[in-house]
Amino acid sequence: MQNPQDQLNVAILGATGRVGQELIAVLEARKFPVGKFYPLASARSANQTVRFLNKDYPVTEPSEEIFKDVDVVLASAGASVSKHWVDKIVECGAVIIDNSSAFRMDPAVPLVVPEVNGHALKGHNGIIANPNCSTSQLVVVLKILHELAGLKRVIVSTYQSVSGAGKEAMEELEDQSKALLNGAEVKTAVMPRQIAFNLIPQIDVFLEDGYTKEEAKVIEETRKILELPELKVTCTAVRVPVLIGHSEAVTCDLERPVSPAQVRESLSDSPIIEIWDQPEEGRYPTPIDCAGQDPVYVGRIRKDSSSENGINLWVVADNLRIGAALNAVRIAEYLLEHDLIEAKSKSTKDGIPLST
Amino acid sequence: MQNPQDQLNVAILGATGRVGQELIAVLEARKFPVGKFYPLASARSANQTVRFLNKDYPVTEPSEEIFKDVDVVLASAGASVSKHWVDKIVECGAVIIDNSSAFRMDPAVPLVVPEVNGHALKGHNGIIANPNCSTSQLVVVLKILHELAGLKRVIVSTYQSVSGAGKEAMEELEDQSKALLNGAEVKTAVMPRQIAFNLIPQIDVFLEDGYTKEEAKVIEETRKILELPELKVTCTAVRVPVLIGHSEAVTCDLERPVSPAQVRESLSDSPIIEIWDQPEEGRYPTPIDCAGQDPVYVGRIRKDSSSENGINLWVVADNLRIGAALNAVRIAEYLLEHDLIEAKSKSTKDGIPLST
Repeated sequence: MQNPQDQLNVAILGATGRVGQELIAVLEARKFPVGKFYPLASARSANQTVRFLNKDYPVTEPSEEIFKDVDVVLASAGASVSKHWVDKIVECGAVIIDNSSAFRMDPAVPLVVPEVNGHALKGHNGIIANPNCSTSQLVVVLKILHELAGLKRVIVSTYQSVSGAGKEAMEELEDQSKALLNGAEVKTAVMPRQIAFNLIPQIDVFLEDGYTKEEAKVIEETRKILELPELKVTCTAVRVPVLIGHSEAVTCDLERPVSPAQVRESLSDSPIIEIWDQPEEGRYPTPIDCAGQDPVYVGRIRKDSSSENGINLWVVADNLRIGAALNAVRIAEYLLEHDLIEAKSKSTKDGIPLST
Repeated sequence: MQNPQDQLNVAILGATGRVGQELIAVLEARKFPVGKFYPLASARSANQTVRFLNKDYPVTEPSEEIFKDVDVVLASAGASVSKHWVDKIVECGAVIIDNSSAFRMDPAVPLVVPEVNGHALKGHNGIIANPNCSTSQLVVVLKILHELAGLKRVIVSTYQSVSGAGKEAMEELEDQSKALLNGAEVKTAVMPRQIAFNLIPQIDVFLEDGYTKEEAKVIEETRKILELPELKVTCTAVRVPVLIGHSEAVTCDLERPVSPAQVRESLSDSPIIEIWDQPEEGRYPTPIDCAGQDPVYVGRIRKDSSSENGINLWVVADNLRIGAALNAVRIAEYLLEHDLIEAKSKSTKDGIPLST
């Protein structure tokens, strides 16, 4: 049991969004020691309430007053909202764990998957970045391969669900699917193209070199988290008509030869990876298997037929969990366990003023 | 205008299947010089008729008698049916263009995409194999890259539509989608797993090395068609909830440096490739763009960020057309144009007996 002093006052910025809802579910499921609870969102969502541990909380707009009473802000309201509030949050003595891309590549900001590079949280300056959903599930696997046999090159093709684009994108997939099955007109508003019974090889905007921002994120964030700034990585990111769960076909060139059996063994040592890899029984992970689940699922582990020391794998995870909410809460847990955050309530007790 | 002597008597083996229907549409659209027309299928489909050039034809079971009157058999009824009939067809003096995997890797059988290796048809022995759908669209692109800069290594992740698994699989995707949208029970009979709003990283059966047979086909057939038996290729083949159209994320390591612009230019010289690659306008091919179309569409052409001389591309095509029916008919056209097939009607006219 936690001491009451170890409870943190938690704000969720973007509490009514898809990741916000998942943050609430994860906080509940993991019995995170929440003291006060502040669900925050824009004025547009102001009339709503959200339920947390069997109690309804009114959704309010973020304010300095609230942040003064908060220890940790789990932010998932987009880059512009995070950028707008970050200085105020830090000034108020709270830590922001931000799910947007706003600060991820800032050298002063740790970009963390706790199981991979939790040590990077030491000496944080109040801002911590949560990686892109496609990156999180990937680096969990790559880190272990790197320790096992040395990573040389990584080629990733993603199969990303619409929930990565938010609640409206999920509704659009369902609405378009219904329309198509009923011979009605298909309306596209949220996604750049029809997604029902289709694929969209574009996630986020295009950059000058022909990559999308999503692909660039996977490449750059992977290098930062693994602390391998020169790692050769390429990525093609594709949106697929799946509601929840991102999948990745990964080819890794390794320094040293390893067998699929060795890879399977090393990966299965991880407490957050589940190996589903019995092809003879038709066992491999698919997105519907992983939706609502915490682990990173790995299957289809086999020798890469195009390189000396290569391994191919199929990596599937719930993009709203490990790719967002779960990872954010695990960061908060890591901060608590390693004394990298202090509850204001505790500080007050110890006679240190709340804030100026 | 073709001489009447240049007309071929055509049988379609598997005329009621999804590819059979497409074969009929392609023969019509391309004004293939069909003399007599025999739609063939198993007893199960015997009561059906098929429409060809505004005339209804009864579907009959295959027989020696029919094959004696046929010049070319376009076969798309699966490997076991092709194997069962092949000797009889050849004995009867007909050429079989077979869409199954039965003979593709037989060294005596040409495996052909006419635009890539039409020359391999010379000296055929009556059996010609049509490549796997994922292979056909891939080799059209790879051939040009090889000529441009020398292929070293190819890494392919596929996003394959359910029509590759036949008409029943298409119906299953629609039925499952309806059920899920209506909260009803999902039934899975044709596919190995639920495909609606899901992905299945298994196409065909698993082999001992952990690859699926589909993946092995892409690897081996690519080497055979490109006549590069040592080419390094790897593949992950994934079924996606799309009705028609296969997509491929392709990474190519090349011997010599090339720019995306050079690749774009070389590919656009091909009469069967269409470049859709204006990311700034959001222009790239998606499966619904290519369904019912003949070209191989290529987009997302960019430097591979993980290798010296690498190129990434996104290749989309109608798997029922270039991947099956269209390629089969193009093989027949090539045979005609290059005098590699002779019409029995013509032989008779010249006084050579029809058969013994």
